[in-house]
Amino acid sequence: MPIYTRVGLEEALKLILSTIEPVRETEETDIAGAAGRILAEDLEARFDSPPFDRSALDGYAVRGADLSGASEANPAVLEVTEEVPAGTFPMRSVRPGTAAAIMTGAPVPEGCDCVVRQELTELGDGGTSVKIFGAAGPGDNIVRRGEEYRRGTVLLRRGTPVGHVEAGIIAGSGAGRVRVIRRPVAAVMTTGDELAEPGSDPARGEVFNVNRFLLSARIGELGARADIRDHIPDNGPLLAERLKSAAADSDLIVTTGGVSVGKKDFVHEALRLAGAEIIFRKMRIKPGMPTVYSLLGNVPVLSLSGSPFAVAVTQELLMRPILAALSGDSTSSIRRIRGRLADGFDNASGHRRFVRAVWDGEMFRIPEGLHSNGALLSMAGCNCLIDIPEGTFSAAPGIEAEGILF
Amino acid sequence: MPIYTRVGLEEALKLILSTIEPVRETEETDIAGAAGRILAEDLEARFDSPPFDRSALDGYAVRGADLSGASEANPAVLEVTEEVPAGTFPMRSVRPGTAAAIMTGAPVPEGCDCVVRQELTELGDGGTSVKIFGAAGPGDNIVRRGEEYRRGTVLLRRGTPVGHVEAGIIAGSGAGRVRVIRRPVAAVMTTGDELAEPGSDPARGEVFNVNRFLLSARIGELGARADIRDHIPDNGPLLAERLKSAAADSDLIVTTGGVSVGKKDFVHEALRLAGAEIIFRKMRIKPGMPTVYSLLGNVPVLSLSGSPFAVAVTQELLMRPILAALSGDSTSSIRRIRGRLADGFDNASGHRRFVRAVWDGEMFRIPEGLHSNGALLSMAGCNCLIDIPEGTFSAAPGIEAEGILF
Repeated sequence: MPIYTRVGLEEALKLILSTIEPVRETEETDIAGAAGRILAEDLEARFDSPPFDRSALDGYAVRGADLSGASEANPAVLEVTEEVPAGTFPMRSVRPGTAAAIMTGAPVPEGCDCVVRQELTELGDGGTSVKIFGAAGPGDNIVRRGEEYRRGTVLLRRGTPVGHVEAGIIAGSGAGRVRVIRRPVAAVMTTGDELAEPGSDPARGEVFNVNRFLLSARIGELGARADIRDHIPDNGPLLAERLKSAAADSDLIVTTGGVSVGKKDFVHEALRLAGAEIIFRKMRIKPGMPTVYSLLGNVPVLSLSGSPFAVAVTQELLMRPILAALSGDSTSSIRRIRGRLADGFDNASGHRRFVRAVWDGEMFRIPEGLHSNGALLSMAGCNCLIDIPEGTFSAAPGIEAEGILF
Repeated sequence: MPIYTRVGLEEALKLILSTIEPVRETEETDIAGAAGRILAEDLEARFDSPPFDRSALDGYAVRGADLSGASEANPAVLEVTEEVPAGTFPMRSVRPGTAAAIMTGAPVPEGCDCVVRQELTELGDGGTSVKIFGAAGPGDNIVRRGEEYRRGTVLLRRGTPVGHVEAGIIAGSGAGRVRVIRRPVAAVMTTGDELAEPGSDPARGEVFNVNRFLLSARIGELGARADIRDHIPDNGPLLAERLKSAAADSDLIVTTGGVSVGKKDFVHEALRLAGAEIIFRKMRIKPGMPTVYSLLGNVPVLSLSGSPFAVAVTQELLMRPILAALSGDSTSSIRRIRGRLADGFDNASGHRRFVRAVWDGEMFRIPEGLHSNGALLSMAGCNCLIDIPEGTFSAAPGIEAEGILF
């Protein structure tokens, strides 16, 4: 494969996704453990739903013919032969002139063809007869066996992310356990002599390691497992060794720092020493220009710049789709949105730019501090990235724009 | 307090939230453990950011006066006295006629007043001098100490949910640990004789317990802890005992089933026996009409109907704001959206109705099966609830509507 350079976002994603092998290993889990995971197999209904003809409400199961002409002034009077609570099964058939009291969800007795809502009835003295003040027709207020789905119907497809609704659907199918895809493991390798551990007193010239936490928290939010590796100083051969070691038990390696043009941009050296196949270097987006993507054996290596602000953007644009592809998630992991700009801004370089913003359903509001490079603080509370096309040098308030929801 | 009945959604929320005491207990955690939690205290910067005047890019730290008149044809030539990688501190001052090679993020030396980007320079043979092909002015490419924020600045407020960006901001502040609010504990108490455990073979007349999983998965997604209690048969006195026991170690109790008008609607009885103070019963929304809200001592008890479809809707409308209030989350937990209907629908009752749909940023698409009451399956893949106002009996495609994002 040739080495691509200065790639656009869509080209980068196409190149990346062509190299990703979804995780194959699966795990069996109970329903609670399936939440937040991806189904590894189709979920088939084990029973019809509902499993029997059931009443949609509380009332009386009757034969519609017995109610012919019934009204407020002239109620039908029927003998009550039985009461059928939910969770039980009727003992008797409904014969002409009789009714069974029935609860929501309870199986309807043989012989009846409809259920009359309790509010339209009045139980007689002693509870052995009921007055019904209106008519009803065949099927009224009865949910038929299998009306929702039949046994064997595929309810959820392999590759479906399991949220709370899907957890409920699994339970309703009758399955007590399901098979899900193993969580992808993403190794987080921050680099740079200048980084100090949060909580420590930094030496002169040092700043805190932000990227480790930015990346690992996002990896967790996206349903994968962050494997936080030791921080690595500016040392190509050492990083090469650490990359090879991480590749042995990771589905993805993300590095930060050391990819720009300076002398100490040793990630290029490390990738070469480790024998990585470079797929592309440099992108035509801001932030994120110096991004490098390579393969170490079959393991994708995403090398981001060291700027936390750039990491926050590029992990969204590139890492998120990689994790979705690794996990076999069949849904698009990126939610695109549209709105108008509440604030204008300048984009001197004319590069395609992703600008963090607060989107309220209609408008994109851009917090102040746009040009403060690396000011991650300005991203607090933002919920999206506005996608500013290449060649846009400035944008005025009110302009229509597209964005990506976090 | 009087007992309210047939309350609207906003009235219900106001009544509910007036009764909620936020969880007071806090926990200290490392940064990784803070993700998904709510800050219990303001986060103050422990250092200026940046902590020193630093270079914004790779290049040369110089005195701007030395570049006066420099151009492509007539470069300034300066002596290179030192190299300053990120993570180190400069040893020398920049004096007239000299320059220091400097890396992105490194502290700028005394004496210099700007940094020239490496691409505008050419290192001389032997590396002791550099040609600079352009001018620069004071402050160019230098990020000043404290430019982002000063030590002591409040970076994140108490009550802020910690996502990945906030985790990065905490790390950048220098804090290694933070104090977060204890996760609220929500007891999940499903009721009903008719429910079988998923994975078992149901008896005749039984259906599977869906609500336990629907609720507990959502509680987890919303950052709280689900305390799954034993399923309870249709037995008022037993439920009363279990409610009292759950109230001893829960911040919220959610029950399902047994709240309609039928004979077996024993939740009302249980609440009375347990001594709960009813705040409201019945709501003017569909689904969710039979909802009851009460207090057992100080513990809120949200009693939902047994229909999984109704539970999915009402947990979003009512339980989610309760959990946000309990956790002290200062942000609005509900994200309202707008769009046009791709599909029309009928709403025979004219009640305010919440209809599950797929919202693509512009249009609401309503999956088929709207009238199949309790068909949780039809909610799979939906990402929102359309909010249909009271008195709307039908809606045509193209109409503007509001909704709530899951």
